[in-house]
Amino acid sequence: MNKKNAISPTRSENYPEWYQQVIKAADLAENAAVRGCMVIKPLGFAIWENIQRTLDDMFKKTGHSNAYFPLLIPISFLEKEAEHVEGFAKECAVVTHHKLAVDSNGKLAPAGEIEPLIVRPTSETIIGHSYSKWVKSYRDLPILINQWANVMRWEMRPRMFLRTSEFLWQEGHTVHETAEEAIQETLKMLDVYEDFAHRYMAMPVIKGEKTPNERFPGAVNTYTIEAIMQDGKALQAGTSHFLGQNFAKASNIKFLNRDGKEVYAWTTSWGVSTRLIGGMIMSHSDDDGLVIPPRLAPHHVVILPIYRNDQDKERILDYCRKLASELNEQPYYEQSDIRAMVDERDLRGGDKFWQHVKKGTPVRIEVGAREIDSDILPVSRRDENTKKKQMMPRSELVGAMANMLDDMHNSLFNKALQFKQSITKEINDLHEFEEFFQKTSEENGTAGGVALCHWSSELDVQEKMLAILEGLKVSTRCLPFDGESKIGKCLFSGKETNKQVIFARAY
Amino acid sequence: MNKKNAISPTRSENYPEWYQQVIKAADLAENAAVRGCMVIKPLGFAIWENIQRTLDDMFKKTGHSNAYFPLLIPISFLEKEAEHVEGFAKECAVVTHHKLAVDSNGKLAPAGEIEPLIVRPTSETIIGHSYSKWVKSYRDLPILINQWANVMRWEMRPRMFLRTSEFLWQEGHTVHETAEEAIQETLKMLDVYEDFAHRYMAMPVIKGEKTPNERFPGAVNTYTIEAIMQDGKALQAGTSHFLGQNFAKASNIKFLNRDGKEVYAWTTSWGVSTRLIGGMIMSHSDDDGLVIPPRLAPHHVVILPIYRNDQDKERILDYCRKLASELNEQPYYEQSDIRAMVDERDLRGGDKFWQHVKKGTPVRIEVGAREIDSDILPVSRRDENTKKKQMMPRSELVGAMANMLDDMHNSLFNKALQFKQSITKEINDLHEFEEFFQKTSEENGTAGGVALCHWSSELDVQEKMLAILEGLKVSTRCLPFDGESKIGKCLFSGKETNKQVIFARAY
Repeated sequence: MNKKNAISPTRSENYPEWYQQVIKAADLAENAAVRGCMVIKPLGFAIWENIQRTLDDMFKKTGHSNAYFPLLIPISFLEKEAEHVEGFAKECAVVTHHKLAVDSNGKLAPAGEIEPLIVRPTSETIIGHSYSKWVKSYRDLPILINQWANVMRWEMRPRMFLRTSEFLWQEGHTVHETAEEAIQETLKMLDVYEDFAHRYMAMPVIKGEKTPNERFPGAVNTYTIEAIMQDGKALQAGTSHFLGQNFAKASNIKFLNRDGKEVYAWTTSWGVSTRLIGGMIMSHSDDDGLVIPPRLAPHHVVILPIYRNDQDKERILDYCRKLASELNEQPYYEQSDIRAMVDERDLRGGDKFWQHVKKGTPVRIEVGAREIDSDILPVSRRDENTKKKQMMPRSELVGAMANMLDDMHNSLFNKALQFKQSITKEINDLHEFEEFFQKTSEENGTAGGVALCHWSSELDVQEKMLAILEGLKVSTRCLPFDGESKIGKCLFSGKETNKQVIFARAY
Repeated sequence: MNKKNAISPTRSENYPEWYQQVIKAADLAENAAVRGCMVIKPLGFAIWENIQRTLDDMFKKTGHSNAYFPLLIPISFLEKEAEHVEGFAKECAVVTHHKLAVDSNGKLAPAGEIEPLIVRPTSETIIGHSYSKWVKSYRDLPILINQWANVMRWEMRPRMFLRTSEFLWQEGHTVHETAEEAIQETLKMLDVYEDFAHRYMAMPVIKGEKTPNERFPGAVNTYTIEAIMQDGKALQAGTSHFLGQNFAKASNIKFLNRDGKEVYAWTTSWGVSTRLIGGMIMSHSDDDGLVIPPRLAPHHVVILPIYRNDQDKERILDYCRKLASELNEQPYYEQSDIRAMVDERDLRGGDKFWQHVKKGTPVRIEVGAREIDSDILPVSRRDENTKKKQMMPRSELVGAMANMLDDMHNSLFNKALQFKQSITKEINDLHEFEEFFQKTSEENGTAGGVALCHWSSELDVQEKMLAILEGLKVSTRCLPFDGESKIGKCLFSGKETNKQVIFARAY
């Protein structure tokens, strides 16, 4: 490996292609034989498992249980909620037959026609059908259920992790007695997502409410966490929906309230998906490949033995294994311990070194004969320059590792936060707004940045706005919760308002 | 609740209906709106999560990683392995369209036709496609990958957990350099399944090889664990397949071996599913409902506070919570602690008591004012008579709980083992064999028992045998590994052989 970067093209040369090459070099995933679908390979899936376990614990601590509902949904269920149909009908995979038979060309072909069923794009309607039977009285509420599942939304322009026809996700579906309680749940789960993004992914997010045009089809209100990628584009990383009584009416979820009256329930839904892995990649990775934030890394530390002959080999491997098992006993974050491994594969040292750079292992320790003799080891952090090595006495290193990983976590978070702040601009003038996004172009990988603008919510203003945004390929990301409440003039109508919206190009 | 059994009908009255009622009374699952599919409710899913976590750890300890492959498979992939097509084509859900549009009746209808895809019934062919790209040299082997997924096999006669059109499972798919290594893997994973069934499900299994007619379509050899249910029927609880080079040839998985020659690889696959929950239910449950073997129970202990007034209530709840938190600190099995809960719901004591009986919670402790004053608590084990209560001083109880749960586990296992042995008969005469199965009928819920017979494997013998078995609705379950190697006469051909086969009616 020469001194060039491990990934070609680099971020500045071609960001979208860099993203694909990072995934390939880290061996995270690959395109599948079925268009728009992907194969998640062991390293990619191990990261997903860490995401899943952590979130699952957080959901359970907030009182939720898991359950499982069917993959296939009768079309008639989808028809019940008008906006919902419109939002999803165009991307449904449809099952129309229940078996195959040999056709006149001697080929297998669909046989045994059935009433068409769709592969779930999301499960509000099929879960609502169950809930309508489970909920009779206010005593049955709240229902707090989550499902880990695969879903399908047929994609015309797929991108691994970001937009695939099939993806893995979790979808929470809850039912409540009152609107207040349902809204509280919606916001509570948004907080869980923010907490997870910050504490595990080291990915700063903007928490806020979606503008009406970006709402989940059928929702009264959609809340979102938006993360800003290194090319200045936003990624919707998780959403939480207050569904009002819309889906309760569509699915007939009614109950006897405390006054003995039959009323419709209030529901919510919320989800994050394998898209988070795309967000993780684009938040932290560099021109040498993947950078995994430590708390999601399948292995925190890799120990690389370097030897020239068989006699050295045994001695060095022995030293490495002992070091790994000492590290593995060190407590790290929450209930987890440090996860260290020795890479004992019979490969050239340089190849191994670069593989772990490209795979984003947080810390590398190289151990050769000289290191054993001196007991001073070169330690490299993945978030620092690839060639930088910190020489640390072994005795210190083991005890210092947890702090080093925490330091790396904080450093990744702060770097991403500073980047986000550096490209965010408060804009009060439409001309300036257009210039801000025009001077950059999506094609060369720089997508401009993030504009924070005053915005008045009237319908006609929204229409005017959407026309302008379409031309710029920009969208409303959210009304940020921490938006200043100061009064300003709406960018599109000139009306005074205290509402602010974040605008950006988006994945 | 009167003194009759909680489940009606009882096992002896109508076993299949008893099974459905146990599921309903325990609130484990229900039939879905889509024919043949089910909704797995929180308690059912919590049991599945315990199964999943335990098996997943066992797979990882034996060197396997998880990955994820697409849900949809091009039909052409299925065509590549002749026996495989024949085995699965008749039960495939087929996706033929990628969107919905409004038809002339104003209804949503399939639109946007695509090359038909099947919803995976199993993933050998789609995973093989990936493996063919991953495997180039013997250095790339072995590949040891597992997938947790949903699969679909269209069922005409569905039964919850046992046979549903969609089910959840894990499927291991491995690739090896030599036949020996692949066979070793196949048998190793069968051992993992047996170990899990015995140590976690308290379900004794017979380990053996399938007769050719019962092999997985496309396999060279299928191995199985068979469990015997309380009605005398067998349940195939897990299978492990040595696929030889059949799927490697179908998917073109070739590699350069140590001699530099290009050769086909050797593959295996192995799986267990949510069917295990059906096996668990039918192994241990009784006429009062579900019995969950302790190591799979979401909660090991439920504490039931009993109070008459508000003053008592606080004092009693306080006592119960302290007891629960002490129990929760007790180590139980492997890395787990005891999981105790206080049922604080505002329900009549009797209703609560019976709910936990029907839900199979292993241990119940009732706590009222009298119990607090004496510090002697009535403890009931779910595997004993529902009315039996053991009076235990609180000070003893906490420390004794782990042993009590282990004792319950052993007792469930031994009871099931004794039952299996009591209905197993060695039969050497065809007339006796027919009588053994004729005297019982499937309809009244007693399915006869298990016959162990000598069997010679010639093709013509198999044909004769299958005709006889069909009339009796009996099938070959396996050639048990621990079958005695003594010589005897084949039941169907009269030829001398040392092979023995287990026959039973089956789910």
